[in-house]
Amino acid sequence: MAEKPHVLIPAPYYKPAMDRLDEIATTHHLYKAPDPEKMLAEVGEKCVAFATFMKADPPLLDRVPNAKLIANFGVGYDAIDIEDANRRGVKVTNTPDVLNDCVADLALGLLISARRHIVDADRFVRAGQWPVKKLYPFVNKVHHSKVGIVGLGRIGEEIAARCAGFKMEISYHNRSMKPDVPYRYYPDLVEMARDVEILVVITPGGAATNNLVNEVVLEALGPDGLLVNVARGSVVDMDALIACLKDKRLGAAALDVYPDEPNVPEVLFTMTENVVLTPHIASASHDTRMAMGMLVYDNIKAYFAGEPLITPVN
Amino acid sequence: MAEKPHVLIPAPYYKPAMDRLDEIATTHHLYKAPDPEKMLAEVGEKCVAFATFMKADPPLLDRVPNAKLIANFGVGYDAIDIEDANRRGVKVTNTPDVLNDCVADLALGLLISARRHIVDADRFVRAGQWPVKKLYPFVNKVHHSKVGIVGLGRIGEEIAARCAGFKMEISYHNRSMKPDVPYRYYPDLVEMARDVEILVVITPGGAATNNLVNEVVLEALGPDGLLVNVARGSVVDMDALIACLKDKRLGAAALDVYPDEPNVPEVLFTMTENVVLTPHIASASHDTRMAMGMLVYDNIKAYFAGEPLITPVN
Repeated sequence: MAEKPHVLIPAPYYKPAMDRLDEIATTHHLYKAPDPEKMLAEVGEKCVAFATFMKADPPLLDRVPNAKLIANFGVGYDAIDIEDANRRGVKVTNTPDVLNDCVADLALGLLISARRHIVDADRFVRAGQWPVKKLYPFVNKVHHSKVGIVGLGRIGEEIAARCAGFKMEISYHNRSMKPDVPYRYYPDLVEMARDVEILVVITPGGAATNNLVNEVVLEALGPDGLLVNVARGSVVDMDALIACLKDKRLGAAALDVYPDEPNVPEVLFTMTENVVLTPHIASASHDTRMAMGMLVYDNIKAYFAGEPLITPVN
Repeated sequence: MAEKPHVLIPAPYYKPAMDRLDEIATTHHLYKAPDPEKMLAEVGEKCVAFATFMKADPPLLDRVPNAKLIANFGVGYDAIDIEDANRRGVKVTNTPDVLNDCVADLALGLLISARRHIVDADRFVRAGQWPVKKLYPFVNKVHHSKVGIVGLGRIGEEIAARCAGFKMEISYHNRSMKPDVPYRYYPDLVEMARDVEILVVITPGGAATNNLVNEVVLEALGPDGLLVNVARGSVVDMDALIACLKDKRLGAAALDVYPDEPNVPEVLFTMTENVVLTPHIASASHDTRMAMGMLVYDNIKAYFAGEPLITPVN
């Protein structure tokens, strides 16, 4: 039996799916190596592909010159320099679609949790405050509220479909209008933010959307407004967000992503009734992570067989 | 100008709506009286109606013999003895429909929060655990899961409509099958609990449903199952629930109601990743509480005018 092709895993993803990759590849787990430089010296030239979660930058590619595929675990590939990959003749794949439902589920979970104060109300009960204060303060409703989706792609459409079940009035902002969707289009994000009560951000990350949701947008959303971010931390200006929450120019925020993960600005920890914070778990269900991992597997398998890649991005 | 009719308010409801009642009635707020007995002696015989949140029991009715209407704030009237009211010739009204959307919203919020661990993940971030533990554990998905609704009434149908947006497979248990609903009917609750992953309880309270969700039902739901209760605390056997959660015969619970509110069994406070607790807030949005309060108002106004009651229950 011929030796299985070598694959480098710079950053880990869902373990049961990484284990499956061993069926077709000899894997090298760089993140576990006591001496990564030594591992790269030993196997760098042998590896013909990367299986990775975000991490695969040009300096690393220099060390693995025969790898012509980066199979990225995740739909967002903003951590990978596509132009650099193109220059090297390296193909990149991602894991679209299989995570749409889970991300949309979490977006709605964050939206309802923040709007109806579920996280803070749970804290209130566990602190024994119910018998003392008698009533938890009244909140704003979810149903029939006006929601604006920033980035009506495939996940955005799943979010919209769920919002429809709550009888929400749905708008969206994209760079261009989408044909065949029943939602109101806003070419101007600030105008949309002014008209809605809830903004859900699910646009791709990267330079084009860096700080797209800035102070002007947050102020337009306003003191009764809620910002939900399940996109990338880079899309929302964190300093502006903190400032707006502090002085009540923005009502509330529910965040799954942050500019400097896993670090979250500690000032947010002190904001309780109007802020919900989750640790980048939008796609983190067993089923979805396995499906994402198997798409990494399938792309690598297709590449080994000389067949067309399943989900190429370049 | 003639004196306005007298109305007794034994237990308070949404204040802006109580204030509106002063337009058409002389109100007596029993819950605020330093000496309730003295207030009853003074105004008991003058009051011709109750506006109340749950509280209006036979001993109280004895003290207010000329009141022929109990306008209850809330859709559930299990706290009122309807047979006793009938014997006295007292009409009872409730506040149906206006709260359906908000209750269904919270049911979904609890469902997603519990299934996707939003409350516990927020706790994890705020405790600074993300940089330490790197990953929050993976969870079960919401979309495409099997949900069983216990009590497919008007609120149950709103819950089902929202679940459909998440592509869930929907079943229900009622005493009898409903015509014209597209969901699978289970005459047997235990059988439904065995077949689904999530049980949402929204059946009316009262003697007929007391401890309907018992140990056998909870065991059938099982170690991966989630129980959501937005009905009444009386519908779920709390001792059995605690026992099943403790020894993992049941996976998780998200509760808005409890048998002895505002007291919640403290043992639940120690259950973090699999339990969500809110303080009976399913209908507690400003808009819904105002709508409920105005339905109390409208029923009392109709009664004063000798017109048909808007939402009678007996």
